[in-house]
Amino acid sequence: MIRAGVIGATGYAGAELVRILTGHPDVEITMLTSRQYADVRFSDIYPAFTGHADMICQTFDPGRTCDACDVIFTALPHKIPMSIVPDLIEKGKKVIDLSADFRFSNVENYESSYQPHSAKDLLKKAVYGLCEVYHEKIKTSDLIGNPGCYPTSTLLPLIPLIKKNMIDCKTIIVDSKSGTSGAGRSLSLGAHYCEVTESFKAYKVAQHRHNPEMNEVLSREAGPGKNVSITFVPHLVPMSRGMLTTTYASLAGDISDESLRACLESFYKDRPFVRLCRDGKVPDTRNVRGTNYCDIGFKTDRVNGRVILISAIDNLVKGAAGQAVQNMNIMTGLDETRGLLQVPYPL
Amino acid sequence: MIRAGVIGATGYAGAELVRILTGHPDVEITMLTSRQYADVRFSDIYPAFTGHADMICQTFDPGRTCDACDVIFTALPHKIPMSIVPDLIEKGKKVIDLSADFRFSNVENYESSYQPHSAKDLLKKAVYGLCEVYHEKIKTSDLIGNPGCYPTSTLLPLIPLIKKNMIDCKTIIVDSKSGTSGAGRSLSLGAHYCEVTESFKAYKVAQHRHNPEMNEVLSREAGPGKNVSITFVPHLVPMSRGMLTTTYASLAGDISDESLRACLESFYKDRPFVRLCRDGKVPDTRNVRGTNYCDIGFKTDRVNGRVILISAIDNLVKGAAGQAVQNMNIMTGLDETRGLLQVPYPL
Amino acid sequence: MIRAGVIGATGYAGAELVRILTGHPDVEITMLTSRQYADVRFSDIYPAFTGHADMICQTFDPGRTCDACDVIFTALPHKIPMSIVPDLIEKGKKVIDLSADFRFSNVENYESSYQPHSAKDLLKKAVYGLCEVYHEKIKTSDLIGNPGCYPTSTLLPLIPLIKKNMIDCKTIIVDSKSGTSGAGRSLSLGAHYCEVTESFKAYKVAQHRHNPEMNEVLSREAGPGKNVSITFVPHLVPMSRGMLTTTYASLAGDISDESLRACLESFYKDRPFVRLCRDGKVPDTRNVRGTNYCDIGFKTDRVNGRVILISAIDNLVKGAAGQAVQNMNIMTGLDETRGLLQVPYPL
Amino acid sequence: MIRAGVIGATGYAGAELVRILTGHPDVEITMLTSRQYADVRFSDIYPAFTGHADMICQTFDPGRTCDACDVIFTALPHKIPMSIVPDLIEKGKKVIDLSADFRFSNVENYESSYQPHSAKDLLKKAVYGLCEVYHEKIKTSDLIGNPGCYPTSTLLPLIPLIKKNMIDCKTIIVDSKSGTSGAGRSLSLGAHYCEVTESFKAYKVAQHRHNPEMNEVLSREAGPGKNVSITFVPHLVPMSRGMLTTTYASLAGDISDESLRACLESFYKDRPFVRLCRDGKVPDTRNVRGTNYCDIGFKTDRVNGRVILISAIDNLVKGAAGQAVQNMNIMTGLDETRGLLQVPYPL
Repeated sequence: MIRAGVIGATGYAGAELVRILTGHPDVEITMLTSRQYADVRFSDIYPAFTGHADMICQTFDPGRTCDACDVIFTALPHKIPMSIVPDLIEKGKKVIDLSADFRFSNVENYESSYQPHSAKDLLKKAVYGLCEVYHEKIKTSDLIGNPGCYPTSTLLPLIPLIKKNMIDCKTIIVDSKSGTSGAGRSLSLGAHYCEVTESFKAYKVAQHRHNPEMNEVLSREAGPGKNVSITFVPHLVPMSRGMLTTTYASLAGDISDESLRACLESFYKDRPFVRLCRDGKVPDTRNVRGTNYCDIGFKTDRVNGRVILISAIDNLVKGAAGQAVQNMNIMTGLDETRGLLQVPYPL
Repeated sequence: MIRAGVIGATGYAGAELVRILTGHPDVEITMLTSRQYADVRFSDIYPAFTGHADMICQTFDPGRTCDACDVIFTALPHKIPMSIVPDLIEKGKKVIDLSADFRFSNVENYESSYQPHSAKDLLKKAVYGLCEVYHEKIKTSDLIGNPGCYPTSTLLPLIPLIKKNMIDCKTIIVDSKSGTSGAGRSLSLGAHYCEVTESFKAYKVAQHRHNPEMNEVLSREAGPGKNVSITFVPHLVPMSRGMLTTTYASLAGDISDESLRACLESFYKDRPFVRLCRDGKVPDTRNVRGTNYCDIGFKTDRVNGRVILISAIDNLVKGAAGQAVQNMNIMTGLDETRGLLQVPYPL
Repeated sequence: MIRAGVIGATGYAGAELVRILTGHPDVEITMLTSRQYADVRFSDIYPAFTGHADMICQTFDPGRTCDACDVIFTALPHKIPMSIVPDLIEKGKKVIDLSADFRFSNVENYESSYQPHSAKDLLKKAVYGLCEVYHEKIKTSDLIGNPGCYPTSTLLPLIPLIKKNMIDCKTIIVDSKSGTSGAGRSLSLGAHYCEVTESFKAYKVAQHRHNPEMNEVLSREAGPGKNVSITFVPHLVPMSRGMLTTTYASLAGDISDESLRACLESFYKDRPFVRLCRDGKVPDTRNVRGTNYCDIGFKTDRVNGRVILISAIDNLVKGAAGQAVQNMNIMTGLDETRGLLQVPYPL
Repeated sequence: MIRAGVIGATGYAGAELVRILTGHPDVEITMLTSRQYADVRFSDIYPAFTGHADMICQTFDPGRTCDACDVIFTALPHKIPMSIVPDLIEKGKKVIDLSADFRFSNVENYESSYQPHSAKDLLKKAVYGLCEVYHEKIKTSDLIGNPGCYPTSTLLPLIPLIKKNMIDCKTIIVDSKSGTSGAGRSLSLGAHYCEVTESFKAYKVAQHRHNPEMNEVLSREAGPGKNVSITFVPHLVPMSRGMLTTTYASLAGDISDESLRACLESFYKDRPFVRLCRDGKVPDTRNVRGTNYCDIGFKTDRVNGRVILISAIDNLVKGAAGQAVQNMNIMTGLDETRGLLQVPYPL
């Protein structure tokens, strides 16, 4: 059994980690920490978990955590992980960090969007945990920068086409829509029911911090010397879970729908969590709710020579906790689907 | 492996059965039928199930169904099951019927609320599948009338108190609130998003067909000669899943909160799907969403000598498909929780 | 033109007052105050109001307020109004207070549910602003304690039947359901979208502070020596506006549906904001959304000799800001419907 | 008083017309028709309207309609209006048609997206009722093709920039998101609450019938010889009312934010229903809910030389019934805001 700890267990991503790990056949949760709810039973904070996760939340202590755990998930606000992860890594633990702190190869990209980085050396060691793309590197890594939800939903449909030079990288426009749980559990007026319901809006237009994360990965995948910069606009949807990303790009020549489909199919043929929609259908966030799937569909606008890629994930699962556990599975030599193949809900 | 069939697999209760049975470790689904979607792949109707339930739906044929299945779930509109179930039972199959057709001991109660009954003899054989109350009878039964969602949520908190004479049966008022999925998947204006959202209303006030079902069971449990008749008002909540029932009754004497709690605890101490709320808390439908739990809490109004019972279930799970599978587990000698203990979602 | 001020204009009830007063043909808003948003344009806080209410919010100053206004609405948390209203009254202003501070005749009822009262003398002067019941007193009053939303929806259907001794006052059970805006705009986890959506729950079961308010009014209306104490359970609905109250009571004898209907019709025949549902229909909160109506319907359970009253209001309008303006209309000699008869929305 | 009729009054757009016309100070509704609800009181279909619109719906009869009405709104499915409008026009009535039948100048554009047109001659007479752009023509017209909701929200931000050659017309990508009421009131599984809630999806990707409507207008406005063809992807939002459109285009040169803003401001300076967001803010559908406003904001992505236009309307008001009444106002010489300036709701 893998002994796992969740640092920051009571936020939405943390609680989703607790859900998945509790149901994981090879995992025993040995540590849950919470600043806000120290000494409180987890199932008193989330009564749904009564009978499933009745552990007491503790305050974080590196020593006790390392004694108790083999794998540690850090589900904390940006900036905090870089101050605690180095210690955990030094003590030989495997760490999967859900913040942005270890997602960047280039520290300048991080620092221009977030803040000065205090553990730059670890960035070289860290692997970007987009499982379908970097599984080989993940296998041997001890530190994962778990991707953001917007990057996950954007990169998965784009990377196969970019690697095959099927689209013009200068024309990529990403219009993404996220459920409200992406805003987290911290108090904020913008997360209030009365402010969200019957509301649809864009935010951080062309200024979101996930934008540089996507640019870095896309530039790397596009090949040496390529500098990809996308236009990215996130929107807020009045629902709790789910993310749909609509990506527009000009085709790099006269490329048929069959070629596009073949490119995606070939790239993902052994990747169980990417489902290509059949028969020209397109994804719906409902179909991936609560699951680790990324559903992908596409259409072409032949008049304008553009491809329209549409991808759906659950922002808390494939966009956070599910992909984190998938990373753990890969790092520990388990089948990557272990604990992640619950049957989806019909509604 | 139990070979299971779902007759009427594409309605909401049917699809929920497919979800639970697909994840059940001791079950193989060998037959899905649908009038509306014959010859269509199940995952084309519910794309969430792609990779999990890709079988083709068939038209119902009793011979093929009996050849293929050991246990048959009939998730059909009232009146249809009584015309097909006798044949299945005669062929030695175990049948769990989700309609009202086999819920009543007294055929007159059925006929006054529904229509003439064409398989009256089977009513004697059928067991009312409220698992926590009738598990002994269920063990040896071949035909289960699976309870309605309103009765399940109402009967579970009431029966222990009634059996111990703690409440005055003439004073029972049941105010129940259901999510929209209870209305089913058939087209109706009342189920439209724009009609349901930002709407809360009562319907079938003191006239709902689940009322006689509850009266029959409560009268039986109250003891010989008791004729319990409750006031029952259902309401529609703008959400998809979940049911909360608030029940009011006068206490039969000076009964302490401790006695009430002890009565409920004692009755349900070995019943894994009933959770009594801790510390005077009361249930929330969110905490049982997607699960087979019935969460129960209560408060007393000492000025008026009344107890207020509050119970929450997922109308599609404990109120339909989940309890049906629980019945199957009990009928086939499995642990009653098999396939039904997925970790709940935090949100 | 009436010069009106709203003290506490940026909470949900305050903003709804601004909406109604802005559209009122006989009113000019001359003062908006806000602690949190002092010196901010109202339409920067609520951009919907751009072009309609672009005034700057001020900090509250009694002198400036009295100079600027004839009528003052105080939409503040309980306890604050009793410290500022005496001054306004002394200066000859008409005040409509939306808090609980001036709703009680009996100061003990207030103090047992809220806190010590610092302006007890004013309680004698204050009139309980349930317009349909107390319009005569309201006409000549300078200080209105504007009723709570739960009391408004509960009292309107009950009072006519109680005054005519048609129900047994010892049997009243009130099961009420409120939209989320009732919780106000202050930050709280319980008001978060992800906590409210797909959730239905009871809260403050038999302990809500509106309970004594209702008991006091019902006891008064029941007649000398009558001490009415209801069982009251509020619930939270996943919608923003609207309140539905289901009230159960035993009939005081063999009273026909026609008599019940005649009693309600007679009581409300000249009251434009109470609509009795036609043809045995029952209310839906959608039908009163954004309006000052209280829709009322009823059914009887003849087996148990009970009447079931159902009433629907918009908690922010008839349950708060709309009734406050209706009170202003009555106090100032205007037709009570002025500014309050916008055509409702079909959806 | 203008005597107005609504043909097809019980669909969502029709009912919204009834709402607005009932509150219009210069209009008397003299005819409501409905195939489905002939001889039924309008307020029995929409109980919210009790006391406001209690007329009986009639079956449509051209003679009676022309006798009763000066202005006729046809809110019917595509294809039906072209068979009845010629008669009404011949009888000297002013007609505002909410279908697509009279929106196209070029009949081929209509026929390729809809069906053969049986009243081609009238297309020359009909004016496209995008009020802010074609008000001069509307003034003298008897027949208006009222724009679709997607075209209204897309064209208003784009046209000023296109007319001033500020963007490259070959690069326009429109990602639009609509509330569910846009699907209408006809029964469909896709409109069911349980199918819509917690779901976000694209539909008719690059194939929507509003696409040619936009192309025709944009080509006309771009100038002689210009053939604009946009990439258009509509999405469905789990809310009832509201539409947000995010439009991407490459800037035609080095154009500053100030120039873009000045262009929009100048174009709309006398148009009361277009509100440009202040201070770099962007629109939210909540702010226009129930109103005839189109709120517009924009951002630039300087790295890629793109402008991102964001516009919000209520699809049933500015996207249908409100703009129809605005057209009536202009056609009849009234101020264009008459009956359309209700104060918006704060939530």
